[in-house]
Amino acid sequence: MPAKERLDLNEFAWIAMESPSRPMHVATLLVYSLPEDAEPDFLNQLVAHLRQSTEFVNPFNKILRRPTPLRPYPVWERNYDLDLEYHVRHLALPKPGGERELGMLIARLHSNPLDFSRPLWEYHIIEGLENNRFAVYLKMHHSIVDGIAGVRMLQRSMSSDPDDTSSPALWSAPIPEELFEDKTTTSRLRRALTGARRSAASATHVARQLYDTLKAGINDKDPLLLPYQAPMTIFNGRIGGQRRFATQNYDFARIRKLSKTAGCTVNDIVLAISAGALRRFLQEQNALPGRPLVGGIPVSLKPKDDQSAGPAVSYAMANLATNIADPKRRLEVICESTRRAKGVLQDLSREEIENFTAIIMSPNAMQTSLNLEGRTPPVFNVNISNVPGPTEPLYLHRAKLEAMYPVSAVTHGQALNITCYSYNGSLSFGYSGCRDSVPRLQRLAVYSGEALEELEATFLPDPGVVDIGTAKAARGKKASA
Amino acid sequence: MPAKERLDLNEFAWIAMESPSRPMHVATLLVYSLPEDAEPDFLNQLVAHLRQSTEFVNPFNKILRRPTPLRPYPVWERNYDLDLEYHVRHLALPKPGGERELGMLIARLHSNPLDFSRPLWEYHIIEGLENNRFAVYLKMHHSIVDGIAGVRMLQRSMSSDPDDTSSPALWSAPIPEELFEDKTTTSRLRRALTGARRSAASATHVARQLYDTLKAGINDKDPLLLPYQAPMTIFNGRIGGQRRFATQNYDFARIRKLSKTAGCTVNDIVLAISAGALRRFLQEQNALPGRPLVGGIPVSLKPKDDQSAGPAVSYAMANLATNIADPKRRLEVICESTRRAKGVLQDLSREEIENFTAIIMSPNAMQTSLNLEGRTPPVFNVNISNVPGPTEPLYLHRAKLEAMYPVSAVTHGQALNITCYSYNGSLSFGYSGCRDSVPRLQRLAVYSGEALEELEATFLPDPGVVDIGTAKAARGKKASA
Repeated sequence: MPAKERLDLNEFAWIAMESPSRPMHVATLLVYSLPEDAEPDFLNQLVAHLRQSTEFVNPFNKILRRPTPLRPYPVWERNYDLDLEYHVRHLALPKPGGERELGMLIARLHSNPLDFSRPLWEYHIIEGLENNRFAVYLKMHHSIVDGIAGVRMLQRSMSSDPDDTSSPALWSAPIPEELFEDKTTTSRLRRALTGARRSAASATHVARQLYDTLKAGINDKDPLLLPYQAPMTIFNGRIGGQRRFATQNYDFARIRKLSKTAGCTVNDIVLAISAGALRRFLQEQNALPGRPLVGGIPVSLKPKDDQSAGPAVSYAMANLATNIADPKRRLEVICESTRRAKGVLQDLSREEIENFTAIIMSPNAMQTSLNLEGRTPPVFNVNISNVPGPTEPLYLHRAKLEAMYPVSAVTHGQALNITCYSYNGSLSFGYSGCRDSVPRLQRLAVYSGEALEELEATFLPDPGVVDIGTAKAARGKKASA
Repeated sequence: MPAKERLDLNEFAWIAMESPSRPMHVATLLVYSLPEDAEPDFLNQLVAHLRQSTEFVNPFNKILRRPTPLRPYPVWERNYDLDLEYHVRHLALPKPGGERELGMLIARLHSNPLDFSRPLWEYHIIEGLENNRFAVYLKMHHSIVDGIAGVRMLQRSMSSDPDDTSSPALWSAPIPEELFEDKTTTSRLRRALTGARRSAASATHVARQLYDTLKAGINDKDPLLLPYQAPMTIFNGRIGGQRRFATQNYDFARIRKLSKTAGCTVNDIVLAISAGALRRFLQEQNALPGRPLVGGIPVSLKPKDDQSAGPAVSYAMANLATNIADPKRRLEVICESTRRAKGVLQDLSREEIENFTAIIMSPNAMQTSLNLEGRTPPVFNVNISNVPGPTEPLYLHRAKLEAMYPVSAVTHGQALNITCYSYNGSLSFGYSGCRDSVPRLQRLAVYSGEALEELEATFLPDPGVVDIGTAKAARGKKASA
């Protein structure tokens, strides 16, 4: 008799949001080098090996069961028997197998919804990537995973030992219960949402009061931005069901050096790179608003009233200063804005943070309570997340992981998502967008690289320190569609 | 201002049937040889060339517009501007690029629904097929095309001259209006459905009377089968959203020779091959019913009261004699059954035929009036269609078309579809099935080849005439998933 469990409210919200124009899955694109001595059928063997798994762990073995007349709520059924020939797929890129072909394939795969009559994940092994590489695209529904948990799960299915081939398959690797319990930042966020939404009316009330208090305390010169102060942009309307995807990969040392010299955080540099790219991208389309774009930045906080139970997660509103042409001044405004936002959030109690977050983040709150859905002013213009990943090189059956890119969900009102993963000394950006609302997404990735170079030229005293070789390599390492 | 037109009832029915577990698109898989002197980037050039089209013909340029408060019915909007990078796709097979890899890819592509916010078609060019070949998978929604019209459209986008590269792209080739008017068998069928369903109650009444009359006239020894006399099988339950696909390709001369020797039609041989394969396939799964399976066979008729207006199309019920072990006796029963069924249909008036057909074929009638949907006895067990195609070799920009396979829609109550296209001296079978209800579909294709060999061994006086080379080649030419 398979175990059944009810969905928590957050899981339910992700499921309820799913629609053909808004599939709510998230994915990771992993790029590997083939081992130097790999046999020609290395990937066929890997696929065959992975399909031999017989043990499946949560959440890979659970399936959604819709409500029935006798059970008027959906449940997860565990220990579902997996059809691995379905879930584990072997694909190939057309020639020349460059980042462009990869980006187009990922965009198409990411546009296809998951099959809700099966466990909500797919694992695609993609051969034919130039320079002796291959890729893996792992897609999971947002109701069973989030970015941080996904990265940790992937990490456990690889080894730091180049010769170790004993790592269990992703779906067979035992997952420490912390990943699903109350000790991680992500599950804190889930708890915040769930708790707040249990009493949605009161949470909305508290958050509204908080919002009004904050608003009353700021004046024109205060760098603090609040939700719903963002201008309308092409990224904030209704979306269709098709996606675009582009990537950029940077040497982390470049970002760190820049942040030290400019006296700001790595996150601020991530924002400044994105801001510079967004400014040029929108300008080119005659679509740059007069007011600055607002980035929604997930932040991890220690509430002042409750430092014992680990961090609380919320969203800070960052002024991206896209109305400012000077890159130096733009970065300064970004830094002021994030510093002030974090300061305010750090002064809040845990309950205040959780309610504040719930009103921003909860899909249901966004969709229904506040009647957003891409028809009203956006809570912010674009999500810009920075997810920490493994710092040491990892190997999948002797194939070295070269880079790891997030492929995110977009939704009505949020047609563009910028997320980066750090891994082994590099920072890898995934740009996920709606095909219709965000044309020429590839250019955004290109302009990001140029925005980084511009910041380096501005802040680094000796232009010689810009390692042209690295910059060019980074420009070469992009995929798009 | 784009032209708008209302959907006819048949189009509307196909659209209304669409659901995640029952996408209502049909497709054709075309296998080509690369020209002998093809440049390495032949396919990239072909893709680029096809994407340059600027003229688009019906039905490729029309998009479905859902009802609005001011227009409470859906319409087609013509002259929609196409995003050809979306509709025309370049894919590749993983190595070794055999029929197995092709079958798995086609099964996956056929499981993905079309995007209803765009014109309802996709054209996939697939590289990496072994022996210097490539494939094209053309998917269209059943509301804008049927099998026969699809084959004719494809034909017009190719040339019978191996050196002709001037053929317009499929979506730019002017289509003679007959294809959409009342002169073809397919549009007759559409007219029959539409006409009958305008007065659904009366049509149902007439058909029921007809059914009762026919039933009263037959006794135990009469080979005539009527709708709803089929046994329940694994092919006739509810389906999921994923597909399997397998193919077989035969030299048409083998089929013709067999039909002449056995004194039956080519269609009877197609049925006998399928019947032999189905018998073994079901036996192996301990799922062969005691009563014979019933095949639903589209037939073209000249109504006795109205021979002037071209043929009427209906469905004959064929006894597949799957309860009979002896292949000779099995073919005899099949022939008796189809002869009797056609005889009865030929005695009907045009109105009787059309009403009779409507009750069998109309998706809405099946789904609602008769409350089928894979929960009640099936109208028949499996559709077996034989669609005539081009008799001369065709070329797409100098690449020779080697074979052309139908990839059909399946639905609740009809989880398996067997359709074959004839082309240039060969007969190509496409087996389309629900992934969950029809496991090991590939074996059905293999057993079909063996059923043909068995018939040849039974009927052809000199076993020497079985061309072993051809038989082996046919066995080799199958794809599956």
